[in-house]
Amino acid sequence: MERSYEEGLIAILTDFGDIDNYVAVMKAVIMKENRRVKTLDISNNVLPFSIISGSYLLYTSYKYFPSGTVFLAVIDPGVGSDRKALIVKAGDWFFVGPDNGIFWPIIEENFSQAEAYSISIEKSDLRNISSTFHGRDVFAPIAARLAKNGDPGFFGDPLNLESLSKLSLIKMQKDGAYICFEIIHKDVFGNVVLSSKGKILSIMGKDVEVLKKSDNKKYIFKNVPTFSLLEENELAIYENSFGFLELAKNKGNLFADYGFKIGEKVCLKK
Amino acid sequence: MERSYEEGLIAILTDFGDIDNYVAVMKAVIMKENRRVKTLDISNNVLPFSIISGSYLLYTSYKYFPSGTVFLAVIDPGVGSDRKALIVKAGDWFFVGPDNGIFWPIIEENFSQAEAYSISIEKSDLRNISSTFHGRDVFAPIAARLAKNGDPGFFGDPLNLESLSKLSLIKMQKDGAYICFEIIHKDVFGNVVLSSKGKILSIMGKDVEVLKKSDNKKYIFKNVPTFSLLEENELAIYENSFGFLELAKNKGNLFADYGFKIGEKVCLKK
Amino acid sequence: MERSYEEGLIAILTDFGDIDNYVAVMKAVIMKENRRVKTLDISNNVLPFSIISGSYLLYTSYKYFPSGTVFLAVIDPGVGSDRKALIVKAGDWFFVGPDNGIFWPIIEENFSQAEAYSISIEKSDLRNISSTFHGRDVFAPIAARLAKNGDPGFFGDPLNLESLSKLSLIKMQKDGAYICFEIIHKDVFGNVVLSSKGKILSIMGKDVEVLKKSDNKKYIFKNVPTFSLLEENELAIYENSFGFLELAKNKGNLFADYGFKIGEKVCLKK
Repeated sequence: MERSYEEGLIAILTDFGDIDNYVAVMKAVIMKENRRVKTLDISNNVLPFSIISGSYLLYTSYKYFPSGTVFLAVIDPGVGSDRKALIVKAGDWFFVGPDNGIFWPIIEENFSQAEAYSISIEKSDLRNISSTFHGRDVFAPIAARLAKNGDPGFFGDPLNLESLSKLSLIKMQKDGAYICFEIIHKDVFGNVVLSSKGKILSIMGKDVEVLKKSDNKKYIFKNVPTFSLLEENELAIYENSFGFLELAKNKGNLFADYGFKIGEKVCLKK
Repeated sequence: MERSYEEGLIAILTDFGDIDNYVAVMKAVIMKENRRVKTLDISNNVLPFSIISGSYLLYTSYKYFPSGTVFLAVIDPGVGSDRKALIVKAGDWFFVGPDNGIFWPIIEENFSQAEAYSISIEKSDLRNISSTFHGRDVFAPIAARLAKNGDPGFFGDPLNLESLSKLSLIKMQKDGAYICFEIIHKDVFGNVVLSSKGKILSIMGKDVEVLKKSDNKKYIFKNVPTFSLLEENELAIYENSFGFLELAKNKGNLFADYGFKIGEKVCLKK
Repeated sequence: MERSYEEGLIAILTDFGDIDNYVAVMKAVIMKENRRVKTLDISNNVLPFSIISGSYLLYTSYKYFPSGTVFLAVIDPGVGSDRKALIVKAGDWFFVGPDNGIFWPIIEENFSQAEAYSISIEKSDLRNISSTFHGRDVFAPIAARLAKNGDPGFFGDPLNLESLSKLSLIKMQKDGAYICFEIIHKDVFGNVVLSSKGKILSIMGKDVEVLKKSDNKKYIFKNVPTFSLLEENELAIYENSFGFLELAKNKGNLFADYGFKIGEKVCLKK
């Protein structure tokens, strides 16, 4: 990898919000371990406890980052249980966080170049570990040292990839004349991301019938490449800028106005 | 300009929010183009699609930044249309973003030292441009290169300033015994910024009658220099710290409590 | 102190939110004064005007930061009054901000190694000071210079510690069979922090009766070390990761669901 580890980069993804000091304290711990490393927030406002939404944000981000970047991803409702603490190397990037499935889509995409390690408290000489904040006490110091050292073997023991928690961002199911997907993310504008690549739209017509499974309501969405082709408040379906299938209400908030929920089923008529 | 371009600064203003990875991915693209540049968020929580509020935030910020700073301002409901992609040089600062009027107040203030360029995809050798996220695919890489190179002519073709989209932060209109303004911004405390400089208060008395045009309700606001002269929940009108005319409810939220809206007309009795 | 002042660190805590340009303009002022200093946000979303919540966040953060860090803490409803502008040195850290009590718990903890100074506008040669934004005009430039210079005496005059505003994060009161505390903070998950160290739980049983004083409702909270021992929506009381007493609804939002308020009294049955 080209970059010097002396000036490494740690990219942070959490559901810790921006009211508290949780993220700042992780960054302070990082600075104490490794004064030269830079940190960059991907998002600290992942929907609380939503591994799937966090996984989508991480998966659609990682390739834009310099090789050698350490991703510190802490969405950790299982803190204090016996869930593993992971280091993953996939392609040219490192990933540190609890074993909750969030890294799986990236591991799959880099399967032949992926390795996983279970963080060892002893090997890493970590101390004063609290019961509820491993982001600060385990994952931040390991990320900081990894950004300097680049060798996961120093901090943990190899794991079989098959033993990791799994999760998929691509899910589809036939249902009569429909293909059904799950909502995996909503963005700041209220746009709704479905569990599919956007390429599926090439087999759809100009108008797509969308079935909101929870209340069986049907809507027509326009199959368009970009927003500038729409009237205000018109409904659109398109491939988003990360290649996923997305629904939106132009200059409106689809998620709020139509009462969608993360995890809900949404079906398209072929 | 004094600073070395090797350690340039990019200041970011968007309506991309802090839930998604949009801003982080722009920063990752910037780091890949220009490893040494620093980024600083002005705000990524501009009211969605509100060019006027974004323009106010940019206009009241830019002079505090070091000369040579590149401002990356992406509020882009017109993405995918034929709206131009701009580089503006005004005074000692650079501005990059869609042509939506947001830069106009700064151009006006530096008119004799302002230049504008239309970003050329070919000249800049930009590739894989999506239909919906030019912040990542056009504006971020151009900002990163400009922070290194400092010469807009490398990335685009000169434009006549008069051909740009225009917008004004100062708007006033006589209406009988009143002077009417528009609400151009509300801040985190619910304070309401009007389309006027605050100096107008010098011709007003100690108590100012304020007419909320939408429902014709009238209120008395105290003309004061600072909050410490007010009781809790007292209404105040004053010159804010950026020189604009502002209304507030002391330790309360005027915008929410009185049902104001961005763009709404508010009139003062002379 | 070990670090070089040339690459100092300023940690920022405010209630300025993330919609406006207030924090960015403070950072721009800092960069102009001291190009090499780093800034790190602890939180800019402290509950508006809540000194107690800000004090909790600062107190539970400062020890994680490198020695020499300058904390810039601006929650300033008294701006424009004659409240003092402070520099505090406590242990190996510096603190800059209005005299509102926010630093007191840290001063108490480092009493024999604490000094306080009243910022002198003349000594510091500060100019163009607005009536409403001393974060930008006073505190940011002083923090930037202090991060370079390390000597508070350059910028102000010594104060007797006893003359400072005071505030305590630990408050308890007997009330019959109960011990009563105040709510001093709620976190992003809706967890509720009480004005006590968590060690008090060692004298409690497995189930703790909690009295919400405002409406005299009683609830049973489970006394547990970590969330993984709970069912979804179960109520828990525990020592949080910063050593304070905390209440939570597992994977739910206790604060919102049970209508708690900052400052409200909550009592535990012994």
